[in-house]
Parts: sequence; structure tokens; C-alpha cells
Amino acid sequence: MLNKIDHVGIAVKSVDQVIAFYRDTFGLEPEFDEIVEEQRVRAVGFRLGESKIEFLEATDETSPIARYISKKGEGMHHIAYGVDNIDAVLSAMKNNGARLIDEEARIGAEGKLIAFVHPKSMNGMLVELSQDAPE
Amino acid sequence: MLNKIDHVGIAVKSVDQVIAFYRDTFGLEPEFDEIVEEQRVRAVGFRLGESKIEFLEATDETSPIARYISKKGEGMHHIAYGVDNIDAVLSAMKNNGARLIDEEARIGAEGKLIAFVHPKSMNGMLVELSQDAPE
Repeated sequence: MLNKIDHVGIAVKSVDQVIAFYRDTFGLEPEFDEIVEEQRVRAVGFRLGESKIEFLEATDETSPIARYISKKGEGMHHIAYGVDNIDAVLSAMKNNGARLIDEEARIGAEGKLIAFVHPKSMNGMLVELSQDAPE
Repeated sequence: MLNKIDHVGIAVKSVDQVIAFYRDTFGLEPEFDEIVEEQRVRAVGFRLGESKIEFLEATDETSPIARYISKKGEGMHHIAYGVDNIDAVLSAMKNNGARLIDEEARIGAEGKLIAFVHPKSMNGMLVELSQDAPE
């Protein structure tokens, strides 16, 4: 049901600082650098094997990332599990008592199907499910 | 220099609860379930593709995981980047201003070479470097 860590999302104050550090230190260039209007974030992702690390900077103070940082500081914000069949996973999670933020999958970046699961039912960890768009 | 997410470590109160949930919900069985005496933790890991998710429960109240949970609650504790040459990565990180917890690599579980980097210099994220033992 779960096939990989699709990505780990990290809340940061400045993605430009991160880009400079990861370029200078590890020779990594971002695989994407985009504004996600709905979340009011700038998202910058680096590929590491089959996974990505995704750094998120708030574009305004109403962004969930701005609220996260003001409450908890910078740090790991969510983990996204890659899944083959998001509907089946959501159903299994619900049946086993997980509290779903998204009761049904919705379209995310790159045409993926995504859904979030509440950290209260996932050991304090905000979990995203992510199913690749059909080829 | 960085080739994958080796694992994500999650601080939890009960790995038994996690094992039951991941088994019942996702059909996953732990790849390992062991006591790490030095850290006073029980570590339970599930494989997801080339990565693992590793749940950590304190075995006594002096464990770093017990202190983490009492301060921050359950949640993501660290991320481990897989590297080919840990000495080169430590040197590059130090040259770019990262604050190393381990100035030199040391032997971790399964004969791996590991080192930790301080979250203060990594956007609030405790980073572990992990180089596989030679075959």
C-alpha cells in the first residue's frame, strides 16, 4: 500500500538560504521552485534518490507555514508516503481509526492525487498520501 | 554526495501501538525491532522502497527520546541522508558553516558510519548522515 517516502516537507524562513546551502555544500540544484498559491508558500524541492526533500517558505503571514513557524519554529512539517491506490489507503486508515483531514483525495501539484491525515492520529506526524498521476 | 533518504526517525510513546496500526492498516511488518542501549530506545523500522521509517520509544526517562517527547510531544525527530562518502560530506558541511554534533563519523547500527548535524544549523531539523557498511 505504501511504496516509498515521496517527500519530507520542512518549514523554513528562507528557501533562498536553503538553496545556497544545498548548492554550495552538496552540489544540489532544486528540481522545482514554485509558488503554491493555495497554501501561500514557495516550495523548493531537491531530489534524493526516489524521494525529495521539500522546503516550504510562507509567502504571507496567513500561510499554514507561517503559523507553524511562529508556533514551533523551523523544522520538519510533514512526511508524504507514496501510495499506489490512495482510495484504498484512505479507507484502510479510516477503518483503523485515523483522523483524515481530507476524507477524499484531491488534485495536488503535478496532477498527483493527495490527501492529508491528522497528526493527532499519526504520532504527532502530519502525513500526506501521494499517488502519482497516470503516465 | 547525498543519494537517498535513508530513514526518518519518529519519537513515539509506544512502538507496540505503531506496530499494530501499521500492520492492521498497511499490512507492513517491521524490518527490525531492536533495543539501542546507548540511546536507551527501542527502535522499530518499516521499509518503504529505498527508505525506512523508524519509530523510537524511550526505554527509560534519561533517553534523548524521552526528553524530546516531554518537551515537544510525539513527532518527527530526525532525518537521515544516505551518503557515499561521509568524511567528504562532513568536511563540506563544516566548511559551509554547519554545526556538527559528531565531528567525525562513528559506527552505528548494522556497521554503518553515521554522524549527526545540529538542528540549529539545519533549519530546525536534526540531520543524520549514514554511509552503508562495505558489502
